[in-house]
Amino acid sequence: MEARLITLVTDFGLKDPFVGIMKGVILGINANAHIIDLSHGIPPQDLMAGALVLRHSAPFFPRGTIHVSVVDPGVGTKRRPLLVESDGNFFIGPDNGVLSLVLEAKVASQIIHLSNETYHLKPTSVTFHGRDIFAPVAAYLSLGIPPQDLGTRVKGLERLPWPKVIQADGAIQGEVVYIDSFGNLITNIHEHDIMGLQPENLTVSIGSLTTHGLAPNYATSMEGEYIALINSWDLLEISLFKRNACIQSGVKIGDEVYVRKG
Amino acid sequence: MEARLITLVTDFGLKDPFVGIMKGVILGINANAHIIDLSHGIPPQDLMAGALVLRHSAPFFPRGTIHVSVVDPGVGTKRRPLLVESDGNFFIGPDNGVLSLVLEAKVASQIIHLSNETYHLKPTSVTFHGRDIFAPVAAYLSLGIPPQDLGTRVKGLERLPWPKVIQADGAIQGEVVYIDSFGNLITNIHEHDIMGLQPENLTVSIGSLTTHGLAPNYATSMEGEYIALINSWDLLEISLFKRNACIQSGVKIGDEVYVRKG
Amino acid sequence: MEARLITLVTDFGLKDPFVGIMKGVILGINANAHIIDLSHGIPPQDLMAGALVLRHSAPFFPRGTIHVSVVDPGVGTKRRPLLVESDGNFFIGPDNGVLSLVLEAKVASQIIHLSNETYHLKPTSVTFHGRDIFAPVAAYLSLGIPPQDLGTRVKGLERLPWPKVIQADGAIQGEVVYIDSFGNLITNIHEHDIMGLQPENLTVSIGSLTTHGLAPNYATSMEGEYIALINSWDLLEISLFKRNACIQSGVKIGDEVYVRKG
Repeated sequence: MEARLITLVTDFGLKDPFVGIMKGVILGINANAHIIDLSHGIPPQDLMAGALVLRHSAPFFPRGTIHVSVVDPGVGTKRRPLLVESDGNFFIGPDNGVLSLVLEAKVASQIIHLSNETYHLKPTSVTFHGRDIFAPVAAYLSLGIPPQDLGTRVKGLERLPWPKVIQADGAIQGEVVYIDSFGNLITNIHEHDIMGLQPENLTVSIGSLTTHGLAPNYATSMEGEYIALINSWDLLEISLFKRNACIQSGVKIGDEVYVRKG
Repeated sequence: MEARLITLVTDFGLKDPFVGIMKGVILGINANAHIIDLSHGIPPQDLMAGALVLRHSAPFFPRGTIHVSVVDPGVGTKRRPLLVESDGNFFIGPDNGVLSLVLEAKVASQIIHLSNETYHLKPTSVTFHGRDIFAPVAAYLSLGIPPQDLGTRVKGLERLPWPKVIQADGAIQGEVVYIDSFGNLITNIHEHDIMGLQPENLTVSIGSLTTHGLAPNYATSMEGEYIALINSWDLLEISLFKRNACIQSGVKIGDEVYVRKG
Repeated sequence: MEARLITLVTDFGLKDPFVGIMKGVILGINANAHIIDLSHGIPPQDLMAGALVLRHSAPFFPRGTIHVSVVDPGVGTKRRPLLVESDGNFFIGPDNGVLSLVLEAKVASQIIHLSNETYHLKPTSVTFHGRDIFAPVAAYLSLGIPPQDLGTRVKGLERLPWPKVIQADGAIQGEVVYIDSFGNLITNIHEHDIMGLQPENLTVSIGSLTTHGLAPNYATSMEGEYIALINSWDLLEISLFKRNACIQSGVKIGDEVYVRKG
């Protein structure tokens, strides 16, 4: 276990030095840790956004990467700090669901409650476990401390309710789960969910917004025309070429999406 | 060719994990790559801003650096992914002009169409060539794969129309080409263009905004007074000490700038 | 002196490539420098915010770290560029107060006026000493060049007026000194200042905002209820669980804060 790569997902933003402070703590323990920012722009306390970002980013990192997620409204309460090992990768964060989506279809080889305070910063604050627990634990793990030394084994972790794609009257019904900074509307409808339909013979609608067929890429449409396509996360996405579909349509996270034949 | 340094310019912003995902791909191929962010705040699809940022940043990096630019509205269409070698440095990005300004006064020793799919991520999406083509190609190049193995040699690349500085009735006419986050108005007028004028005896105007003489630095003016100076990119810039000249003046990119004697 | 870790605090933001350019300069001099961003979101020219961020971040970095702060409204004037060594750590920046808070309770073992132009970029601009003086000096220092070679020893540096906590009629009076991006209102009242009071028997007020007792963490309150707590910087902070206290209350930096018994 020579993992050196540590990724960070937080809702801290980049105006304040909180992310930099976590990096100082990590590098004070392991000067050779290689730290990569996945995103610090998770909306404050938005567990679903944090979980989604982690789910769709982790697969692109090499085996052995340590992923640290700090979206943590319950910091200082009894919610447990966790380490989960799965497929040779490591996921560290609070037990509030933020780790659950990346692990959804996977077997966790071990789940550790990070209760061994030897590996925490002291005194441990009640407001910043990113600095005091998650950063140092990730750093010690990257040095080769075995997961089981970091706490006690537990079973199970909190799960976020991932909205299910359902079949309703010949339509496939999902919802908007993420909106990126281009304004693209990303849904929970996976490429597999619409495999039975012909790409050129389907209609996607969200409220009054309707578009026909799946586009092969963003640039096939005219500027200002909605298109649907399968995006780089293999999810159905509604987009406006060179414009912001979110601002233009007013669609928001949670809005229902329908895919119909025809 | 032991290039390890890879820079990134994109219009992805930092809210989403797209930049982090590219870094995961690079580090999965070359764990020793050293990745530096130039900017991810290019306005969506703004090729000119991306090209300018690359042009004015690349000269400060050591020889052998690999610069990756992903401002790519035509992703998934037939626009070619390119690698350009010039002066021992490498520029990777779509053939849409984003690479053209940094190469303007330079000879490209080779231009490669990145057609060798061996070095792409598979399956290759139609929406995220930053992840699937540009990141892995940069990583393989940083490992020492020769440019010519990455695709086929081609001639020429798309050029952005860089606005020319012109002489008109004794005035030098240029335009605002970039506005930084301090609100400074950066023009296409180079220090060389006004060498014939005496710094203390010239007038700069943009619309109704007028300022006299070149200031030696930002702090020589009173707060709230416009000044003109030669900035760190050797370009003529109009600035408001401790305030935002863009917000205060309403000037925007493309507005005409005149420099006159007197 | 084998310091390799260099941190950066600036007011440059992340839209423009100025931070990336500084990194290029550093890595061109020392390819092994390890550069960490503390924050580039300091409000333009806000020395106090820059100084506070540095003060509360530096203690979490390992001994020998080189901290570079570029909040520099006087760039190009006679304000001196400085290097301060204290406790085996190094602080580089303009002599305008931005370095003063981190050094407040410390002895500077040496203060160097960075006057040796051998270690500056040439030509040196009048607008970007981050690139032309502070970055290269940090890089040469990280290579092992002794501080005294970088300029001449001087005594003293500019100090920011740090607002004092005062006792007034049985109340402890301080003020809001920083507001983070969650909207938490951070005061200059240190944990030590209120040690004489019982946490459950005190009242904190800012204008018409009043809250009773010190909360053990953010999540003990109801959503939308103000709480006071000692934060991760050991300072008194007023917060709104899962909301933005700054936006909700309209409180701003400099507003007076009172802590009273009862």
